[in-house]
Formats: sequence, structure tokens, C-alpha cells
Amino acid sequence: MKDIRVNLKKYPYHIIIGRNTIKFLPALLKKLSIGKDACIITNPAIKKRYGSSVSRLLRAAGFSDKFIVVADSEKSKSLACAWRVIRNLAAYDKNKRIFIVALGGGVIGDLSGFIASVYKRGVGYIQVPTTLLAQVDSSIGGKTAVDLKEAKNLIGAFYHPRLVLSDVNFLKTLPKRQIKSGLAEVIKYGLIKDKRLFSFIENRYRDILSADTASLEYIVAASAAIKAKIVSLDEKEEKGIRTLLNFGHTIGHAIEAAGGYLRYNHGEAIALGMVFAADLSQRLRLLNQQAFKRIVELIKDSGLPVSARNISLQKVLNAHYRDKKFRGKRNRFVLINAIGEAKIKEGIPLKLIKKSLQKILLPAYLL
Amino acid sequence: MKDIRVNLKKYPYHIIIGRNTIKFLPALLKKLSIGKDACIITNPAIKKRYGSSVSRLLRAAGFSDKFIVVADSEKSKSLACAWRVIRNLAAYDKNKRIFIVALGGGVIGDLSGFIASVYKRGVGYIQVPTTLLAQVDSSIGGKTAVDLKEAKNLIGAFYHPRLVLSDVNFLKTLPKRQIKSGLAEVIKYGLIKDKRLFSFIENRYRDILSADTASLEYIVAASAAIKAKIVSLDEKEEKGIRTLLNFGHTIGHAIEAAGGYLRYNHGEAIALGMVFAADLSQRLRLLNQQAFKRIVELIKDSGLPVSARNISLQKVLNAHYRDKKFRGKRNRFVLINAIGEAKIKEGIPLKLIKKSLQKILLPAYLL
Repeated sequence: MKDIRVNLKKYPYHIIIGRNTIKFLPALLKKLSIGKDACIITNPAIKKRYGSSVSRLLRAAGFSDKFIVVADSEKSKSLACAWRVIRNLAAYDKNKRIFIVALGGGVIGDLSGFIASVYKRGVGYIQVPTTLLAQVDSSIGGKTAVDLKEAKNLIGAFYHPRLVLSDVNFLKTLPKRQIKSGLAEVIKYGLIKDKRLFSFIENRYRDILSADTASLEYIVAASAAIKAKIVSLDEKEEKGIRTLLNFGHTIGHAIEAAGGYLRYNHGEAIALGMVFAADLSQRLRLLNQQAFKRIVELIKDSGLPVSARNISLQKVLNAHYRDKKFRGKRNRFVLINAIGEAKIKEGIPLKLIKKSLQKILLPAYLL
Repeated sequence: MKDIRVNLKKYPYHIIIGRNTIKFLPALLKKLSIGKDACIITNPAIKKRYGSSVSRLLRAAGFSDKFIVVADSEKSKSLACAWRVIRNLAAYDKNKRIFIVALGGGVIGDLSGFIASVYKRGVGYIQVPTTLLAQVDSSIGGKTAVDLKEAKNLIGAFYHPRLVLSDVNFLKTLPKRQIKSGLAEVIKYGLIKDKRLFSFIENRYRDILSADTASLEYIVAASAAIKAKIVSLDEKEEKGIRTLLNFGHTIGHAIEAAGGYLRYNHGEAIALGMVFAADLSQRLRLLNQQAFKRIVELIKDSGLPVSARNISLQKVLNAHYRDKKFRGKRNRFVLINAIGEAKIKEGIPLKLIKKSLQKILLPAYLL
């Protein structure tokens, strides 16, 4: 079991990672003095699989529990859904000391965190992420949000959980495509900060993809430690440190948007974005060819795409220009000098960007 | 002109108060580096009266302006309205550096603050309060909120403005009932913290009610200074200091709720709540009879009610028990030892509470 501290001045919190860590839930909650009445936001599949055991744990320790179920869909990450959950909460919350448990993946986590941030001007919540992507990324760092039709994550707040409890046993039943999607973010951490983690995945990707819990525990802990450190240094993305986490995401997001969020899931789009960023790093003579090859190889081995077809380069460029992180006229990318070493570069010539985009966006006839 | 600093660790801000202070808006905005594109949330009446002059000031200084108008109604303080405004914002906000200006009373201020807190995980906003109640109370302190059918202020955040710009000239055209409503909060500040302010109102209530700007400037500045100090000491109402601001509000809110928010406006209900709290203070031998009489006299002189008829005592008690600030089983009231000296008391016998309620809630035949 690993215990990682997110070192925030005002509300520091812990990330607990391991196999069967869920059994510590009641004891951890008691230590937090977070409340007596657990409102568990989850989806039907997760409730069916884990609901009764979580309920039993809580009740045996004297907590009450109330499940609020939302559809297993990106659409649940919406203001309309948040509104419905809040009205449920309000109806339930009479003379209670409620707190929120986000039991699920990124959609549940982002939605629950947003609700916790605005309900009664903020109630305590904890994250119990059940996907690899949520365990290594979205459950940590306090970015909560819901989408609007106009753009993803347009409404939200920085609002930290009081605890992140990651049980890698949850990942054993995860569909392989979701393991791969989470693995893309893990590769990202290796590329920006941790060459040992990168090598670990090179050696163990088969174990990881078959959900070997020891391997999963290692990569979740290594990833969480990096994210925790970066978030501690730059909580609200004001100092350019947290920006490093966007490696592969600038173009990744644009690819997701250009594909209407249907073609590629987050990890797959990020994989393409990382190939782009690595290629651009090479063109700018930051990264050597051998490292570039290792990166492309590992992404392939992880079952993630390194090129896409039938996605218009112009659409991706347009989506990129609409990105809320795009500052004024100068573009800005996170690139790498070497595996494990990231840096931010601004004002890269459009010609080079297009060349690196051509590397990942193939015309249909080439495939 | 008065310049009061709200001394928060992370985001300190200033409250500027005076006559015709609106002319400083562009210079103050530039000093804040808050953005270039002003999104002004307001209502039709205020836009009609002040829109073009505010617009002229902003444009002359190189800012762009976009007005987003909501209905002049409590109903605008809703999640549905917030949602509509946010979609307006999102449609407008392309390659811009927007910030929000809340130009209006409490509804506009609370709504705008909430929107600023959640749009893109927080954008800068300033308060330009146009009512006495907003200038002395709701614009200061960072409590933003919208209502749900289930309860008022159920959704919100602590999110501070970057500036509060109070121009007392705005108050010259305010309906007298609204001046009185704001004056109730000013009397509250006098009662909990500032006997000189209380005496000032005793001497000048006629000037205040006829919107004499020098008198208004004095009471707005004195009130804002007290609120700023209290908020600086206890930003998130965690230390029992900010609680003092609830003097008269516990029962005041219950009276508002029991009357379906139609019979009494906020200030009138607070006036009744203050008479209740002063009476209870007297019953508990904290306050002497002479001070009690002065309080009732001043509330009357200010054109505010000191008793109500046809409001059921039981309804008020029930609404009180539902109050989100009601902690568990022990009740809790802000009382006064003397004019200008507040203290918190818990566990007051229900019998005494009922007696003090009978003092303000008269049966119909007595009137």
C-alpha cells in the first residue's frame, strides 16, 4: 500500500493506493471527521458490482449511505445532471451531516467534485476512482467540471477531495480498452518526469494490459506521486508547472473534438497527441531519434494508436485554435528534451506543426 | 472617497466608496489587470439608467463591453438563469480576455459571483452594487449563490470579487422601501460592532431616508469597514467570527420563509429578527431595558417593522429548525450585551425563544 500526500497549504490530502484498500474506507473517513452520512454518486454498473460491499463497510462503521445513480455516459457530466443530483441531495439532506463519495471513473469524479464544490458553498467529498484513467489522473488535483454544449469542462471549480482512495482491484474487471486509455496517461508521466516509470512500462506492458494488480499498483502509485507533486507546486495552474501535465493534450484534445468525441477515447487521442509532440520535439532538435522510436514503440505495444486516418488536419488545427488554453496569438506546446524531461515552448512555426500533424493524420489511401 | 481593504491572504481586494466613484472604474480595472472584455450582468432598469454611461467610460479606456441582461426578479437568482447567462458568455467569449461586472443589487451580485466562480473554473469579477443593501452587505465577502426550489442559496461558492466599487449616487433614485431595507443591515452593524454608527443613524435617519449622499457615504463606509474586517478574520465562516453578521438573521430568515418571501423583504424581516434578538438578549439579562428601547425606537424611526401580524409562530419555528446554520440539536443565536457588542449564545430554552417570538408576532386582533 502506498500513501501519497498532496501538499496543499490549506487542505492537504492523502492518496491511498493498493490492493483491496477499499476495506480501509471507514477508518479513513473517521480520521477525516468528514461527516456521518455518505452520499455516494455512482453509475448503475458500478453500483451493481460494488454497491452492496461499500454499503456494508460504511454501515458496519456507523455511517449512513445513500446512493445517487447517474447514467454511465459522458452526458452525465452536464449541468443538467448536476442539477438533478443536487435536488436529490437537497431532498435527502435534512438534519444530516452529509459528505460525497465519488465512486466511479472520470465522469463521476468530475461531476461529483463539481457538485461538492457548489452544494451549500462546498461540502466534503472523497474520490474512490474505479478506472485506471481516474486513478492516475482525474481523481487527483481538484479540477472539477461539467460540460456545456459549447465546450467541454466549461463550468467547474478547483475543489480538492479530502481523500483519494485507489483500489487497484477495481481495475481487474475493467475492459481492456479502458486499461489502455489510462495507460496513455501513465506513459505521459513517464515522458515528462520519470524515465524509470517509462522503462517499467516497456518491460511490463503485457502484465499491465492483463490487469496484473502488482504492476498496476506500481504504475498508479508512480503516476499519482508525480501528479501530486506537480499539483502541490502549482495548485491552480498559475505558475506554468501544472502545464507540463498537458503533454500530448493540446493536439489530443483537438483530435477528440475533431472526431466529435466518438472516434477516439481520451487515452487514444492523447497517445496520438504524444506522438505529435514527440515528433515536434524531434523536429526542433530537442529529442533524439532513438528516444522518439522508443516512444512510438511503447505506444504501439500498449495497444494505442500512433496514427489516425480520415481526420482532417484543418479540423484539428481549428479545434486547437479554439482551445481555452491557447493564449492569444502565440501557440504553446509542452515538448520533451528526453524521456522524462519536459519543457514548454512557445511560438512554434505553423509549418512545423503541420508537418508533425501529417505524421499522425494519414490520408485514407495510405492505410 | 473611502478605500477599504479586505485583507484576505490570497486575494486581497479593495472596496471603493463615494459619490460619483463610477468615473474611476476604467483606471481601477486597469490597475487590476483583470482583462480587456467586460461582460456586464445587469437588469433592464439598471441598463436603461446607467448602461450607456458605463459603456462610454469603458470604451473610452479601450475596454470592450457586452451587456447580459436578466429579469429584475428574485427568480434570476436561479441555476436556470445562471445557465442561460453562461451559455451567452460562452458564445461571446472567443479569443477574448473577459471579466464579469455585476452591475445591480443583491440578486445580480450573487448570480454574477456564482457565474464567475464556475465559468472556466473561475474568471475575475467585480461588484458595482447599485442598492444600499448590496453596498453594505451582499457585495462584500465572497458569498455567491443561486437558489433552488428546495432552499435559498443552496448552490454557491466562496469566491471573492477583485474589487467592489460603491457609488452612493446610484442610491439617489432607489425606492424608499429599498433604502429602508438596506438601512436594517446598517443598524445591524451598529448593534454588533459600532455604537457610533448606531448613534449616527439615530441622529440622521431622516437624511438617510431622503438619500442624502453625504450621510449615505458615511453609513456605507462604516458598514463596509465592519464587514471587511470580519470577513478578513473569518473568510469562510469557520471561526465563529463571521457568525456575528447573522444577528437578527436567524429568525429574520425564518420570517421571510414563513411569509413565502412575499410579505417582507430582507431588511424588513431582519428588522423583526433584530427586535426578537434584542428582546431575547434582554430576557437573558444581557441587555438593559433602556438600550432595548433605543433599538426598537430606531427601527421604527427607520420606517421598518417592529412587529408582524398573521405570521404563525409555529411556521417560523419550523422554518428556523430547517435553517442550514442550525447545528444539530442545540440552537444558537447571536445576541447583544449592549449596543455595539455582540456575542453568540447556544442552547437557549425554547420557552424564552417563544416569548421573544410572541413579542414580534402579534395575533391579528391586537392590531
